[in-house]
Amino acid sequence: MVVGFEKAVSATKSVVTSAKKAPTTLSSDRVINFARGDPTMYESYWRQMGEKCTVVISGHNLMSYFSNAGHFCWFLMPELDRAIRRLHCVVGNAVVDDDRYIVVGNGSTQLFQAVLYALSSSYDPDTEPLSVVAAAPFYSSYPEETEFLRSGLYKWAGDAYSFDKDGAYIEVVTSPNNPDGAIREAVVNRDGGKLIHDLAYYWPQYTPITGKADNDIMLFTFSKATGHAGSRIGWAIVKDIEVATKMVKFMELSSIGVSKESQLRAAKILEVISDDCQNSAPDKEENFFEYGLRLMSDRWEKLREVVKRNGVFSLPKYPQDYCNFIGKYTDPSPTFAWLKSKDGLNCDNLLRELKIVTRGGTNFGVDSNYTRISMLSPDEEFNLLLERLSAIQGTIINGNN
Amino acid sequence: MVVGFEKAVSATKSVVTSAKKAPTTLSSDRVINFARGDPTMYESYWRQMGEKCTVVISGHNLMSYFSNAGHFCWFLMPELDRAIRRLHCVVGNAVVDDDRYIVVGNGSTQLFQAVLYALSSSYDPDTEPLSVVAAAPFYSSYPEETEFLRSGLYKWAGDAYSFDKDGAYIEVVTSPNNPDGAIREAVVNRDGGKLIHDLAYYWPQYTPITGKADNDIMLFTFSKATGHAGSRIGWAIVKDIEVATKMVKFMELSSIGVSKESQLRAAKILEVISDDCQNSAPDKEENFFEYGLRLMSDRWEKLREVVKRNGVFSLPKYPQDYCNFIGKYTDPSPTFAWLKSKDGLNCDNLLRELKIVTRGGTNFGVDSNYTRISMLSPDEEFNLLLERLSAIQGTIINGNN
Repeated sequence: MVVGFEKAVSATKSVVTSAKKAPTTLSSDRVINFARGDPTMYESYWRQMGEKCTVVISGHNLMSYFSNAGHFCWFLMPELDRAIRRLHCVVGNAVVDDDRYIVVGNGSTQLFQAVLYALSSSYDPDTEPLSVVAAAPFYSSYPEETEFLRSGLYKWAGDAYSFDKDGAYIEVVTSPNNPDGAIREAVVNRDGGKLIHDLAYYWPQYTPITGKADNDIMLFTFSKATGHAGSRIGWAIVKDIEVATKMVKFMELSSIGVSKESQLRAAKILEVISDDCQNSAPDKEENFFEYGLRLMSDRWEKLREVVKRNGVFSLPKYPQDYCNFIGKYTDPSPTFAWLKSKDGLNCDNLLRELKIVTRGGTNFGVDSNYTRISMLSPDEEFNLLLERLSAIQGTIINGNN
Repeated sequence: MVVGFEKAVSATKSVVTSAKKAPTTLSSDRVINFARGDPTMYESYWRQMGEKCTVVISGHNLMSYFSNAGHFCWFLMPELDRAIRRLHCVVGNAVVDDDRYIVVGNGSTQLFQAVLYALSSSYDPDTEPLSVVAAAPFYSSYPEETEFLRSGLYKWAGDAYSFDKDGAYIEVVTSPNNPDGAIREAVVNRDGGKLIHDLAYYWPQYTPITGKADNDIMLFTFSKATGHAGSRIGWAIVKDIEVATKMVKFMELSSIGVSKESQLRAAKILEVISDDCQNSAPDKEENFFEYGLRLMSDRWEKLREVVKRNGVFSLPKYPQDYCNFIGKYTDPSPTFAWLKSKDGLNCDNLLRELKIVTRGGTNFGVDSNYTRISMLSPDEEFNLLLERLSAIQGTIINGNN
């Protein structure tokens, strides 16, 4: 198992080496990396916003460990709690009533592990570790995040479709799914199952918002919601206070809470988005989600056209649905393109001939004739991707001899 | 085992409840909490610094996951790397030559766990988990941080003084020590041992800097160095690139790196301290460490006086030493006061009668006639502590009947 970030770096290195030898007819010799989902595409939007989102932090601010000493999640800043709840109300993508508990984390990555701990730590220590499953194709980091410390509390048990053990288990439901963008529900559906809903991509720029998610444990992340990956802010919305409290305990033991600088900035940016979404002035600018949806739709249209033309790959088809937030029918435009090679060839290898680094299907629990391409790269790189995919047929004949 | 933060909260609650019934002759009825080491004492210093330490972050800044894509620690911002190395050079408390690797973490808490992973993950999986020990009294969170996920890689093995297993092990050496302020060296000293040096308190305001620490793995934290606990920034200085690389892998899997907002701010503040320390102008203000040492020395003098007068407790004695940074002999003035009750009574219980919450000796692997008091509270609380300790003799007679 290779983790995403490491893989991205090592893959880039190996391609750079071989690329020196392989001649190319493309406009640029540069290796372009689509293996990771770095959401730098959104930078230009936030640049346009000017000073509205700027935070100013003096040397004496934010010094204490504590953000809200009396609160069960004592490191969560109240302004971030409010901003998160408000944004979900405005977008209508999750239930955030007062009886739901918010836990902040260093990205949803840390919160995923906090949930595993919370759901397994009161489990009988004399029995086997709790099985953790997800339906393939699943997010490539779940297995290693579950396994790397060889915990006696929980263990990775693979594809939910083939899980047949009795007793307690945890199923991760990612919807829309990473890597393939599918809208998902739990697949095991047996007694003793606990569900984690990873809703990182349930935002209007990626998928129609068809209702308020109302699951027991829902994970969201600032990285994919707004593009601020460097801030490492994620949040969980949790129904059961006992689960939420154990997650807080995990966060204490793991990192004694979460950066206040990041929390302050996330609160500010989420509030600006909510303000813009609620602005009813006739001359208002498009809000962040409208902007994101326009960009993503445009990219998907271009990608589908290129893929259709070259005939080598296929892409999933998604049904249009009514988006309550946008107020009309919209096409899903997922964060990742889940590319399949029509003739069963290794997709990653095909694309590496074109100096395009992607993350192959085997990382997601399926075959190598699939690969995942990030749709959130900067314009220049995305355009290079289109250009190279357009030229693929002639290249493949040479590249796979 | 009770973790520090939770303990602090629950202890406060229980004392608040009982306090309503117990009459008191002290000037304030308020429960004061010295169980945690929240370094809010330094706020007034940073307030005086005005705009020098202010950071301004626009909405489009710091968006990518990556800080330095080609670097082994790809999430470490180069400006923070430079600021950390410069400060250690200026203070002279650690070797930071170019062949030492810096890994940033969400506090040294997360880095401690990253080191456990790095030192144990290549260990033979068929053998027992690697033993982790520290000489008692040891930092109260080490056992639970080591145990909470029931890792198959490592396990807590208690007091280093009584550790007698053969084979590989990890010893944590905290110097100056939390809780008792002692200067320490490894105590097991057997083949197969790996050392983690937790040097969180090896700064001039707490102890004379007698030389540059030059250990294999050294942990430092922004929280205790400058008082910025809310930023959750820690760093490790590591000799072996393989260990450092595995720590980076842990950080990827645990939280995909560290808040850039916090890193940016830490870099700024550390640079300001270095600038001030290197300022040779005749009319220069006292630098951060001189300020800290003055405050800590003053507090220790007052505390020793009160403790001596009431005759109920004793405090450790520390030898004066020459501080290379200050340029003269200085007395150690540790972050925590390690109080011992002279007549063997439960120290925590004694102090709770006075509505003073502390962290008792059993949390640190020793008897309950010891307790730990944070010396970093705000002035007002520290003064209340002195006032209550001064009045202790009469109260104890009533409180322990």
